[in-house]
Amino acid sequence: MEEADVVLLDFWPSSYGMRVKIALAEKGISYECKQEDFQAKSSLLLEMNPVHKMVPVLIHDGKPICESLNIIQYIDETWNHKPSLLPSDPYKRSQARFWGDYIDKNVYNVVKRVWTGKGKEQEEVKQQFIECLKILENELGEKPYFGGEEFGYVDVALVPFTSWFYTVETCGKLKIEEECPKFMAWAKRCLEKESVATSLPHSYKIYQFAQQYKHSHGL
Amino acid sequence: MEEADVVLLDFWPSSYGMRVKIALAEKGISYECKQEDFQAKSSLLLEMNPVHKMVPVLIHDGKPICESLNIIQYIDETWNHKPSLLPSDPYKRSQARFWGDYIDKNVYNVVKRVWTGKGKEQEEVKQQFIECLKILENELGEKPYFGGEEFGYVDVALVPFTSWFYTVETCGKLKIEEECPKFMAWAKRCLEKESVATSLPHSYKIYQFAQQYKHSHGL
Repeated sequence: MEEADVVLLDFWPSSYGMRVKIALAEKGISYECKQEDFQAKSSLLLEMNPVHKMVPVLIHDGKPICESLNIIQYIDETWNHKPSLLPSDPYKRSQARFWGDYIDKNVYNVVKRVWTGKGKEQEEVKQQFIECLKILENELGEKPYFGGEEFGYVDVALVPFTSWFYTVETCGKLKIEEECPKFMAWAKRCLEKESVATSLPHSYKIYQFAQQYKHSHGL
Repeated sequence: MEEADVVLLDFWPSSYGMRVKIALAEKGISYECKQEDFQAKSSLLLEMNPVHKMVPVLIHDGKPICESLNIIQYIDETWNHKPSLLPSDPYKRSQARFWGDYIDKNVYNVVKRVWTGKGKEQEEVKQQFIECLKILENELGEKPYFGGEEFGYVDVALVPFTSWFYTVETCGKLKIEEECPKFMAWAKRCLEKESVATSLPHSYKIYQFAQQYKHSHGL
């Protein structure tokens, strides 16, 4: 493994940051993790991601890579001494990218709206959330991982959101396992991997953060 | 070049569909183009893109690939006998994907809101639109194409939207060339390429479509 100057600009409850940590752990890359303060973004963050000013940013040998799915692909292509996260077949790659994109467009929004929502709106978004999980569960099918026999790109993209499920269940008064048992079996399977277990914060810590967030935003 | 069964499900004013046509033209792939009717989506579209039910869909040997940037990457990886649209260096690839993603998240929305908007809201979105073009113009810098010396992935992702600029200028009463001369010089440079010229509908045809759309939506 090459010795590289790798820095991650992160905010620990961010599912997008967790993705990058999992990918780096899968490749066995050591790195420095710098926590950003969202009340006062660092000059380094503003310099490294001037367009979006958002974490995560991976800085490799001084050069920034932004947007988490983009970072995962960069990691996969750069440190290719370990098994690839994306499949090698172009069609399978396109399917993996499709589901990564689906997760980006759908999961974060519904997760946040369940734990911040109230009343009728919350009930509606709970339905959307379960529908979204069922679509993903259907894609998973009987495979152990989204990528097939091996943990891969779609698994990396999706599993961080499960660290928010305790918060979603508590705030939304729902039991995800009752609705989507195969999805939750997949999540538990992923958590058995060291790369995932060491990259996801404890559910209670996320819940505490969410309570503080809601309090400070008057929700 | 292999003889392949390639079908594109398209809707001709769609900038996303134009991207796929340009990429296929760059690779010299012949294909059948099927126009979708948005009042009554075909059973083929619903079968091939059950998640989003949207064009464009590329069907290659009976298997669907959805989401335009994903399709471009699939085309680039599958027909690799011609020069690559994405750079080979992982860092440059990450930058190309970053800008593709930026375009997807920003350009379509502001373009549509300029030509459908009215009054104060339209004035605000015109500013957003110009700011977005200036960010892209800044990224272009003094290069002939976003990819550098050669037309590539970001150019394919962005140039279709310029077919809507006559509509944007007419409905929004603005002159893009006055605000972003280098951007427009890039657009004209792209249009000199046969792959682009043959894939973009005439600006007046788009304008006519936009007028009908606004009329039928009471805008």
